[in-house]
Amino acid sequence: MTRLGLPVPPGFILTTEVCNAFLSSGKLEDGLIDEVAKAMTRLEERTGKVFGSATNPLLVSVRSGAAVSMPGMMDTILNLGLNESTVKGLANSTRDEAFALDAYRRFVQLFGRIVLDVEEDRFTDVLEDGNTTGNKGSQDDGDPETLRYVVKRFKELCERTTGSPFPEDPLIQLRMAITAVFRSWNGKRCVDYRKQFGITPDIADGTAVNVVAMVFGNLGKESGTGVLFTRNPSTGEKALYGEFLMTAQGEDIVAGIRTPKPIENLKNEMPESYRSLTDLAARLERHYKEPQDIEFTIERGKLFLLQTRTAKMNASAQIRSSVDMTAEGLIDEASALLRIIPQQLEQLLHRTIDPRARVKPITRGIGAAPGVPSGRAVFDADRAEEEGKAGHKVILVREETKPDDIHGFFAAEGILTSRGGKTSHAAVVARGMGKPCVCGAGALRIDPKERTLSIAGMTIGEGEIISIDGTTGDVFFGEIPTLDPEIGGELVTILSWADKYRRMGIRANTDTPEDTSIARELGAEGIGLCRTERMFNAQDRLPLMVEMIVARNHESRAKALERLLPLQRKDFIEIFRVMEGLPVTIRLLDPPMHEFLPDLERLLNEIHALKGNKRPREEIEEKMILLHDVKRLSEVNPMLGHRGVRIGITTPEVYEMQLRAICEAIAELVREGLDLKPQVMVPQVASEKELEVVARMLDRIRLQVEKEKSTKIPIKLGSMMEVVRSCLIADKIAKVAEFFSFGTNDLTQGTFSFSREDAENKFLPEYMRIGVMDRNPFQTLDPEGVGRLMRFSIQEGRKTRKDLEIGICGEHGGDPESIELCEELGLDYVSCSPFRIPIAKLAAAQASIRKRRAQK
Amino acid sequence: MTRLGLPVPPGFILTTEVCNAFLSSGKLEDGLIDEVAKAMTRLEERTGKVFGSATNPLLVSVRSGAAVSMPGMMDTILNLGLNESTVKGLANSTRDEAFALDAYRRFVQLFGRIVLDVEEDRFTDVLEDGNTTGNKGSQDDGDPETLRYVVKRFKELCERTTGSPFPEDPLIQLRMAITAVFRSWNGKRCVDYRKQFGITPDIADGTAVNVVAMVFGNLGKESGTGVLFTRNPSTGEKALYGEFLMTAQGEDIVAGIRTPKPIENLKNEMPESYRSLTDLAARLERHYKEPQDIEFTIERGKLFLLQTRTAKMNASAQIRSSVDMTAEGLIDEASALLRIIPQQLEQLLHRTIDPRARVKPITRGIGAAPGVPSGRAVFDADRAEEEGKAGHKVILVREETKPDDIHGFFAAEGILTSRGGKTSHAAVVARGMGKPCVCGAGALRIDPKERTLSIAGMTIGEGEIISIDGTTGDVFFGEIPTLDPEIGGELVTILSWADKYRRMGIRANTDTPEDTSIARELGAEGIGLCRTERMFNAQDRLPLMVEMIVARNHESRAKALERLLPLQRKDFIEIFRVMEGLPVTIRLLDPPMHEFLPDLERLLNEIHALKGNKRPREEIEEKMILLHDVKRLSEVNPMLGHRGVRIGITTPEVYEMQLRAICEAIAELVREGLDLKPQVMVPQVASEKELEVVARMLDRIRLQVEKEKSTKIPIKLGSMMEVVRSCLIADKIAKVAEFFSFGTNDLTQGTFSFSREDAENKFLPEYMRIGVMDRNPFQTLDPEGVGRLMRFSIQEGRKTRKDLEIGICGEHGGDPESIELCEELGLDYVSCSPFRIPIAKLAAAQASIRKRRAQK
Repeated sequence: MTRLGLPVPPGFILTTEVCNAFLSSGKLEDGLIDEVAKAMTRLEERTGKVFGSATNPLLVSVRSGAAVSMPGMMDTILNLGLNESTVKGLANSTRDEAFALDAYRRFVQLFGRIVLDVEEDRFTDVLEDGNTTGNKGSQDDGDPETLRYVVKRFKELCERTTGSPFPEDPLIQLRMAITAVFRSWNGKRCVDYRKQFGITPDIADGTAVNVVAMVFGNLGKESGTGVLFTRNPSTGEKALYGEFLMTAQGEDIVAGIRTPKPIENLKNEMPESYRSLTDLAARLERHYKEPQDIEFTIERGKLFLLQTRTAKMNASAQIRSSVDMTAEGLIDEASALLRIIPQQLEQLLHRTIDPRARVKPITRGIGAAPGVPSGRAVFDADRAEEEGKAGHKVILVREETKPDDIHGFFAAEGILTSRGGKTSHAAVVARGMGKPCVCGAGALRIDPKERTLSIAGMTIGEGEIISIDGTTGDVFFGEIPTLDPEIGGELVTILSWADKYRRMGIRANTDTPEDTSIARELGAEGIGLCRTERMFNAQDRLPLMVEMIVARNHESRAKALERLLPLQRKDFIEIFRVMEGLPVTIRLLDPPMHEFLPDLERLLNEIHALKGNKRPREEIEEKMILLHDVKRLSEVNPMLGHRGVRIGITTPEVYEMQLRAICEAIAELVREGLDLKPQVMVPQVASEKELEVVARMLDRIRLQVEKEKSTKIPIKLGSMMEVVRSCLIADKIAKVAEFFSFGTNDLTQGTFSFSREDAENKFLPEYMRIGVMDRNPFQTLDPEGVGRLMRFSIQEGRKTRKDLEIGICGEHGGDPESIELCEELGLDYVSCSPFRIPIAKLAAAQASIRKRRAQK
Repeated sequence: MTRLGLPVPPGFILTTEVCNAFLSSGKLEDGLIDEVAKAMTRLEERTGKVFGSATNPLLVSVRSGAAVSMPGMMDTILNLGLNESTVKGLANSTRDEAFALDAYRRFVQLFGRIVLDVEEDRFTDVLEDGNTTGNKGSQDDGDPETLRYVVKRFKELCERTTGSPFPEDPLIQLRMAITAVFRSWNGKRCVDYRKQFGITPDIADGTAVNVVAMVFGNLGKESGTGVLFTRNPSTGEKALYGEFLMTAQGEDIVAGIRTPKPIENLKNEMPESYRSLTDLAARLERHYKEPQDIEFTIERGKLFLLQTRTAKMNASAQIRSSVDMTAEGLIDEASALLRIIPQQLEQLLHRTIDPRARVKPITRGIGAAPGVPSGRAVFDADRAEEEGKAGHKVILVREETKPDDIHGFFAAEGILTSRGGKTSHAAVVARGMGKPCVCGAGALRIDPKERTLSIAGMTIGEGEIISIDGTTGDVFFGEIPTLDPEIGGELVTILSWADKYRRMGIRANTDTPEDTSIARELGAEGIGLCRTERMFNAQDRLPLMVEMIVARNHESRAKALERLLPLQRKDFIEIFRVMEGLPVTIRLLDPPMHEFLPDLERLLNEIHALKGNKRPREEIEEKMILLHDVKRLSEVNPMLGHRGVRIGITTPEVYEMQLRAICEAIAELVREGLDLKPQVMVPQVASEKELEVVARMLDRIRLQVEKEKSTKIPIKLGSMMEVVRSCLIADKIAKVAEFFSFGTNDLTQGTFSFSREDAENKFLPEYMRIGVMDRNPFQTLDPEGVGRLMRFSIQEGRKTRKDLEIGICGEHGGDPESIELCEELGLDYVSCSPFRIPIAKLAAAQASIRKRRAQK
């Protein structure tokens, strides 16, 4: 700061090292206080005041100077050094007794609460007991008599509470304040916080202590205090933004008892100070290359800066200020991109709650997919569809969702569940569809039979309006006011810069023509993952799918598949058409068959109910047969079971149908003259031989269709890299695969031996709480394990096939930190859900820029 | 053969290359026959006979000379070249008309059946129709008249069947026979066989054809034929072993119509030939360094060898001959070890069916654990226990088994299930206990309610005697005669040589003191895996375990654990005592909690039954609460769920109890003066931080117990390497772990993303059938995927800790091929079930020897 020559009050810092040394030696009493005394002497020299002086006393503020700010850290203590004697000195030297006594009152109250652990409320109570009127010591313009009385009562309160007199010796006050800083650092809240966020000693090994000479904003009419942003933190507009109060200390602004004035008013009231502030704001921005958040105090007309730090801004403001600062020549485009937090862009891409609205949630679940919809609560998917068709907005409320609920997702504005985490079925499907979702709102009691949800004595029935906030996880009763998403001109600029600086391509994961259109509008450069099973989940197709699965012989299976083929072909035609000129990667059927069948427990209960009601034999038998199939197809570990290419090989009719649908769709559009770049991707590949089987199948079908339709069919075959073994033998896989696509969801499961749902429900939260894991590896790619495996497989794959295209299509593809790892690994593209494309573009650009800078 | 100067009839081979060239050119008619004609000319020169001559005809035999013998390959055709004219020449040149006609009859019959596809039975039928008596053309001493008649009828039969006259031209006969060889190679049976066993073109790309001049064992009284082993293939005894028939061709020995004489008799009947045979046997053994299986023919006093190959021997014979041949100086110890097939040792370590008994199985399942027990069929574990206590031998028969059946395993002689593969619960537990097991006998209908098993109309009730063969998978009704296992003196010699040559240590996987004693007797050098959960499955402990699991609070959990502690301590004390001086590796609790709870479907059905029977409310509620717990603890993918160290961290009381039980057991024995080498192993480790948590727990408890018992507790902490991620970050794991133990069962699951049960039931068989996989990776370690990962992790682990002890404790530890890979990877030891220790020792020795030889 000194370097900039800014007007700040003098002070000193006891560095972390010094503090720790004293703490560990246990000799706080002697050594540290000697050290402090020496520093105080220097401070006295610079201020011309004397600590403890009864004529011209030096007062200081004391606070923690931890490297990382964290909850539970000690608040700042102001006006330290006052006692019955120095308060007189302060009154004399400032010629303002009321000011001095008020400062004294503030000090006793702060010191009492923070250092002596006297409860806040008791300071208020003690005054009410004492029957003092109105001002209660919270006003700084009280008359000296009252203030003296208040100070007395406060000191008595402290003595009663602690059993010792309030400390009079300024050096003892200082020692106690410093000790309190250390104590708060080692307090439970602070320690828990450090554990939770993995702040290990190598990041922050202790706390420093700041001691600064006091300046007073409440020293007469020519004094004041304020806070200030150099740019508007909501809009990013370049104009001082902030507020101030004359004759006040900082806490008065926070307390909200007096209404501060907008900073513009200072221009008239104290034009000199205002000019200084404007200059300083510009200087600080030039120095830090970031908008600043400044605290200042004016003491008798002289401006002091108390603190400056990078301003926290919302996404719009970040974007606007980035573009502006670039135009102003303050930063270059790369730096402009780097200072925007990609995750925050999410704010701009979904409706948000109007911040002016005063709404209170009834509970908070997990924000799983952003957006703020309102609608009638409905408790099953069929009802959701009915209501949706009738033109009503609905929120689908379930304990948890299953594939048979999919039609309800389509019909609903949003999804609310009481079970499951960020990666539960509800969350994943909702995110995939871009539908807002709150899941795992465990405090809700959802009763699907009674069609109610209840919490804390309140019961909401079907049809009543509720709202959810998919970002925060809040659940509201009734409709709430929201703001439209803004994709302003500056975002377009930023994204165009991102396009210029990023190396990786950005593709989208979409399963339907509608989503594909949205993805293209949002700038997708292709489809990285089109999951064909989602197509089977549509309500008109699920029965056909079930028929195919439970088929007793080849003929009935073939019949069901024959009817599915034109439906799939139609989907592919629409998707290819939307994505003309860009690659579209279609993944063949992946999930195990039984995912399409009903739940065992439900079936069993149904059968018992039918039996109890003495229903006709045939009706029961039909269910019994289905039960038999469900049991036959059920698996101990479905995640690791009969799925993906394993089905493609053991029941080849399924993949044959899909490949034919793809080839026919391509043929039709190629004949229309469209330029297509279709890619077929095989899931769950563990061996190059599996891929060879599918390659032969594709060759055969492609040749057949080429002959039938008299046209060439351009198509590439690639492998999902989601089974650990495929990564270990990537050299062999690449002999058959023309491209790789990392399925990092499954790859993470295989690498950790964590089933995602089980892990997130049962032990991951505890792992993160106690610091066994820093973060959820299903949200952010694990660089040590999964990343190491990916790196190996990329090297091996490219050894075999130099121009091998490699991408990622797991959910990590939309996570900025994971995108950074992808850049480092040299992937060609990431693929994510459509609404995360802008985020991914920005993150990819940042990663490119950082990598280039690191290489210099 | 020529090199050895042995007496063999001349002939030639059309090599595979020549045959394939002709086959692919499609010019069989011209080129190949020209080639053959040239070779035949050389053959005529060497024999002094002429093919097709009416005075001194050359006859030949034709057969396939494929590199690999396989079912469906063509049988040998003898006496080819005979027709109405050459038969006279043969009669004249041999001065034996009956012989010539009999040879002709044999030729027509063989050629008719093999080349012309006339059904075997019809040759018999055609004679019965013709009302010829007794001899039916099967005797070679028939009178010429009858033989002429038989030949005529046979030729007519062939003509009727094929629509063309029986070929007279010897060259056409030869061409047709050669074509038949090719046809059989390309026939369905042969092709299927090659597919099934992965015999790809690089192993056998076609078949050769052998054409050899005939010599006749049926040419008068001075002729004969026989087969001969140079050593007894059942006992290994060094003495010619075989049989012969005078005046006979080879097929007569096989046909079993005349009873052959033991080879010793030849000594008197034809001393010259016998001496030659004795000499030749010794010469051949010296040349091939292996006992030989020889076919010979004596033609008018002159001995010819028709074939010699390495004798197939059972395990005893292999062992005895290995020891003998070493003593004879024929081979050295290393070669003696190498020629024994480790898998076959299993024959010696379990009872086997008496080969003299003529028993027929009622069905065949999967041989999952060897041994041949008989006993009463019982259909649940409780009954098994009752009957067992009453002193009866029982076979536990279940559709499939669960942990609650364990007490039944202990009580039973063997286990039979109708569901599940080699790695089903039944199979794994049975193998672990050394109990014979047949599983997946799918043709059996097991009705646990009726207490019957039925198959093909036969129903066996509870208490009836059945037998199973855990090697072949055969199931028998009634008791069957068996032979005791023989662990002869030679096996001891072989194992002592194995001990000398092997580099790796051999440890055992045992869970009980009893098994541990067996393991030590069988030569285990420590316990590589002691699964503590098996201890909880015992009937007196399971209820305590369930109590602990469903505990609603810390107190009731602590109470249950307190009662489990002394039981565990007692187990550990006994195991440590048995293994004094050797390492004992105890794995902390691994399986997910719900494995100890009852099955969901059963519980649901029970509840519905209780409701139906209007049972008291409390009774139903109790079950409902248990149902709730079962559902609460159930997991989507239990294999990847809340288990192993994840339980150890989230419910630390469990591991704390186990660690305390271990420490207390050690303390007690150390105070007695025993020398212990205990090791604690943490399952499912995915991160070094998990291991750190357990390490701190162990340190704390060890120090407590050391203080309480005033003794030092020596103990090592290591990590299971069974999660892919642990292998990927082995460098970090090794910072905490003092040893690694590869859990290759789980590691294979994680690497392939195959759930073992699901894979073996649903798609692995098909994968192996069509050649997508060569072998089951759960039985034989996958060198490309899992092996690569292990290699990486061993390198990384030893980078951190040079003297890191690394072993394997998965089931692969007892598989010879996997043991070979372990040697290559440089593991310190393998650990396997006690009964596989001799196999593992031999396999480890072989691996060491091969590795050393390869390095030379």
